[in-house]
Amino acid sequence: MERLPGFRDFYPEPLPHNDVWSADARQYIFDKWRTIAKRYGFREYDGPPLEPLELFTTKSGEEIVGQLFDFVDKGKRHIALRPEMTPTLARMVAAHERNYKKPIKWFAIPQLFRYEKQQKGRLREHFQFNADLIGETDPAADAELIALLIDTLRAFGLTAEDFVIRLSSRNAWQEFFESGKRKAESGNNAEDAYAFFQIIDKLERTAPEESEKKLAALGFTLAGVNAFIESGKPTAELQSILDNLAARGLKDFVKIDYQVIRGLAYYTGVVFEAFDRKGEFRAIAGGGRYNNLVKLISGGKVDLPALGFGMGDVVLAELLKARGLLPKFDSQMDVFVLIEDETLRPISLKLVHDLRAAGFAVEYPITPAKSDKQFKRAQELKVAYTARLENDAYVRIRNFKTRDEIVTGLAGAANHLG
Amino acid sequence: MERLPGFRDFYPEPLPHNDVWSADARQYIFDKWRTIAKRYGFREYDGPPLEPLELFTTKSGEEIVGQLFDFVDKGKRHIALRPEMTPTLARMVAAHERNYKKPIKWFAIPQLFRYEKQQKGRLREHFQFNADLIGETDPAADAELIALLIDTLRAFGLTAEDFVIRLSSRNAWQEFFESGKRKAESGNNAEDAYAFFQIIDKLERTAPEESEKKLAALGFTLAGVNAFIESGKPTAELQSILDNLAARGLKDFVKIDYQVIRGLAYYTGVVFEAFDRKGEFRAIAGGGRYNNLVKLISGGKVDLPALGFGMGDVVLAELLKARGLLPKFDSQMDVFVLIEDETLRPISLKLVHDLRAAGFAVEYPITPAKSDKQFKRAQELKVAYTARLENDAYVRIRNFKTRDEIVTGLAGAANHLG
Repeated sequence: MERLPGFRDFYPEPLPHNDVWSADARQYIFDKWRTIAKRYGFREYDGPPLEPLELFTTKSGEEIVGQLFDFVDKGKRHIALRPEMTPTLARMVAAHERNYKKPIKWFAIPQLFRYEKQQKGRLREHFQFNADLIGETDPAADAELIALLIDTLRAFGLTAEDFVIRLSSRNAWQEFFESGKRKAESGNNAEDAYAFFQIIDKLERTAPEESEKKLAALGFTLAGVNAFIESGKPTAELQSILDNLAARGLKDFVKIDYQVIRGLAYYTGVVFEAFDRKGEFRAIAGGGRYNNLVKLISGGKVDLPALGFGMGDVVLAELLKARGLLPKFDSQMDVFVLIEDETLRPISLKLVHDLRAAGFAVEYPITPAKSDKQFKRAQELKVAYTARLENDAYVRIRNFKTRDEIVTGLAGAANHLG
Repeated sequence: MERLPGFRDFYPEPLPHNDVWSADARQYIFDKWRTIAKRYGFREYDGPPLEPLELFTTKSGEEIVGQLFDFVDKGKRHIALRPEMTPTLARMVAAHERNYKKPIKWFAIPQLFRYEKQQKGRLREHFQFNADLIGETDPAADAELIALLIDTLRAFGLTAEDFVIRLSSRNAWQEFFESGKRKAESGNNAEDAYAFFQIIDKLERTAPEESEKKLAALGFTLAGVNAFIESGKPTAELQSILDNLAARGLKDFVKIDYQVIRGLAYYTGVVFEAFDRKGEFRAIAGGGRYNNLVKLISGGKVDLPALGFGMGDVVLAELLKARGLLPKFDSQMDVFVLIEDETLRPISLKLVHDLRAAGFAVEYPITPAKSDKQFKRAQELKVAYTARLENDAYVRIRNFKTRDEIVTGLAGAANHLG
């Protein structure tokens, strides 16, 4: 029986096959995410992987349904596997925000699901580090969140030569649109603005003539748009973020790039994406401000400004692998207890148990085995020490690397380890 | 918008409401599970939360479908959210067992889903610690796994007075059945044995007269069955497990209890359940041998003996709470950097960043705030230290508990923190 297409099995290393993923590497990534989030004062939360479909269509419209694992359950509820975390976060914050001091700084590591068209390397699930900051409009909050994003990537050994945060702003484009639109003779402002953002979002993937034509209809020129992008001139808001990050010593990790606008319609201000400098991979992370979403999800009951980012495990793992930054995770046993005299098995089991109780990772032959086979197993497990009972009172501990040996009383064995 | 019934939201502590769960407590439980599993030499794995429905019906028959979240996806596949981990484990082991030395010792912490009838306190998802040992028939393997179960519960502070492993064996019952059946005059042996196990499984929930009647049809008496249960006489296999556990010093954590038989038909040998001694909760954990499952799932290609257990997070958390063993997880910030002079904000941000880089959890006022408000926030966060720049070169560090203060150069600040 096969697993479903687009889903992953996670095996212990060394991996049997290129087609499966490393459970050890996954845990390594999760641990780093958690560690850095906590240093920044972010607290962990989680919601259900299943939510009412309406939660996602409220945010993204009906067209998202085609990209979801959705179904009607036995209780006639139309539900979906979560494709993103933000709607759940907005729901949870709206329900209990009064309990938490603002700004709320929360993170989660959800598994997310999308029914993507099947393509090589396109998965239908991934894990995503989500960090969000809620209840603060000041750009200093944006800087704090972006600093977290930068330091999270640095924690894996990535440097300013490996990645950069491309920083942009819906507000900057809005200003550009407002100043340009005066030249246009007619049209509905909000509709035009939306159409304008759509053109900008697709700029890199559209033939210049087509963009030119569409922009002209709104009173803009492609040359004007390109000049704005190339200027890279930060707005006051973006400048304050740059200054804040520079004060932290993170200037080299960020640059203004107005080409970044992010397709999702719900962003309201600053937007950003993390990219590898070589441009080999899709975005490592992306995020921005979504000041209206909590209000939308709560049906108007709770109105809180917010911003956040998401960082997926798949692109990150690929990047780390390509840069030689994903460690190997072989066995991590501390001690192998050799049992060469079966009459000493009961006392050996006691030793195994005592060493484990003292915090060591301990392996031993579960059934009687020849001496050389046990020794080979200890080697394979790359243990730091072997321990072998001399008799019912003394144990010989051997440092597997230095080959130093010591004989000690049973009770004191743990003191002679690492 | 509400979350689905039977699903949990996990919030940071202190919790806003009895109706939600603690993300911190969840992580505390997961960490303990991982730590003890690794000491025992178990390696982590995981599979997809969605699997082809067939994987579960192959193991448990079509009747399980009524208890699943199952649906047909957009590619016309009939799939289900995993209700248990063992079929996925069997699938994964069957696919790549040659890569791994036997016995394979693996663990996972999957979220599992069941479409249960809605009742108060009956959830539709939980997380489960799954540990399995594959490729070894000797009862010494059973003892190793049960020792892991015991030490996992002990890691939470539970003692032999809090819980006990009720140890039983399908083989013991099989022997009892074989020796008794000679007295029966007719009937199909395998069918009778199955019917017999069903009666035993339901013994505690069935009226004695009814059990008596059903047993009589198979040539047994209720008195005979009860005498066997009350005897609690271990088979040779069970005795070797008891001896093994006694050698480790774990004698007090286990007792023979033939009432435990576990409903699931796929168990083949030793079975066991962990219960709180006061009998206030449902089983904390359960497991046993399933020597035929890997063969069944692999369509006969791979034949490996196996055993395992599962321990859910819900009953465990309830038990720990009832025994006062679930810690509170308030804020765990190390330092609050006070910014009282806004001209010092940029250097303060640098200090915040440097302390975080040194591994400390650091909070600060994201936007300008009054002195007393900052101090109050530091108190709320229960930080160990506050740090306040004296000028652009010196920082005053204050131990929040002892009120000891020290003034130090900026570069050396981290050295003065716990």
